[in-house]
Amino acid sequence: MPAFKRLPRAVRERQMLDSAVRVFSRRGYHAASMDEIAEDAGISKPMVYAYLGTKEEVFLAALHREAARLMDVVAGAVDAGTPADRQLWSGLRAFFDFVAGNREGWTVLYRQARGLEPFAAELAGMRSRMVRVVTELLTQAMSTSGGQATDTELEVMAHALVGAGESLADWMTDHPGADPAKTATQMMNVAWLGADRLLSGTTWRPGTGP
Amino acid sequence: MPAFKRLPRAVRERQMLDSAVRVFSRRGYHAASMDEIAEDAGISKPMVYAYLGTKEEVFLAALHREAARLMDVVAGAVDAGTPADRQLWSGLRAFFDFVAGNREGWTVLYRQARGLEPFAAELAGMRSRMVRVVTELLTQAMSTSGGQATDTELEVMAHALVGAGESLADWMTDHPGADPAKTATQMMNVAWLGADRLLSGTTWRPGTGP
Repeated sequence: MPAFKRLPRAVRERQMLDSAVRVFSRRGYHAASMDEIAEDAGISKPMVYAYLGTKEEVFLAALHREAARLMDVVAGAVDAGTPADRQLWSGLRAFFDFVAGNREGWTVLYRQARGLEPFAAELAGMRSRMVRVVTELLTQAMSTSGGQATDTELEVMAHALVGAGESLADWMTDHPGADPAKTATQMMNVAWLGADRLLSGTTWRPGTGP
Repeated sequence: MPAFKRLPRAVRERQMLDSAVRVFSRRGYHAASMDEIAEDAGISKPMVYAYLGTKEEVFLAALHREAARLMDVVAGAVDAGTPADRQLWSGLRAFFDFVAGNREGWTVLYRQARGLEPFAAELAGMRSRMVRVVTELLTQAMSTSGGQATDTELEVMAHALVGAGESLADWMTDHPGADPAKTATQMMNVAWLGADRLLSGTTWRPGTGP
């Protein structure tokens, strides 16, 4: 066992959460055991309980940590002084970079947490914050481009963009060779060209027929 | 107990699956019990086991049934002889109609199944089929509009559209008053205007800077 008895609490907690993310990602929440997390972290099981609590609490802590890291990298990448399309692209690029470099974290955040009853509300809250950030971005963009979209329409648009981003992040998880910057550009090509037209007042109409 | 002892097997199975979807949706997979499913269906628990098997098998059967219903309504709504944007809109409208009319089924399909280890592969397969249908639609659309997107770009676009659709369906689940036809039109306004420009050769470029 590595000799890290004197490590500060924060460092040790980070190592345990790294191990937890690895083990949950590999095994799934229900099959993952505290024994395996402790073993991966090179620490005793009672120590894991002492630091982080029950398996449910460990998962919640891992979920929070991964969500906070994701929010940090995305927020840090966006320069509010740049045009809306560049802000969106910078945010997407940081998001896809995060996922490409941290597939285990994404697996826990996206593929596992949402199907687990105790974490569904937690995750919905995190996702709402992301939707609100994108809605705000679209609202700013529209103020300079002359569109007439309502608040609900902008919120719906934000939900569509967040869903598209999640889906592509998930696609990247299954395609390790995919380039995050290229994926961000491809998403802009689908989503932004359309959003841009809508924000400046062009709309699609179903035309005739049912 | 209702007197449906003589009901044909198919009818009784459908009633049991209706009950299973209701109970799983309400309780979540782990908290749902075979007792509650049997009670909801007005049938004895041994009968549920006899017809459908273990709880895992019941969930899988419910998942299959909801996915098949969804595929049926979407495929039935799309007229291959119409333009690509109308095909996409018709499919989206049928999809959002299904979700608006069947929130319990959507909860089981989308919110629960993907986080449950035994069903993740099953669900990934269903989603792949949906992505393939959309990719095919985009490929056809491009053949008449002169774009230069590669197969991978079309697949990425399809993933973005499917993700956007899922996200809006989920938004609808939380907004019971939302109109499926209007939601389909709103999604077209974001996604199709962009896809249309891309398919006809207009692309978004990140421009200068990092």
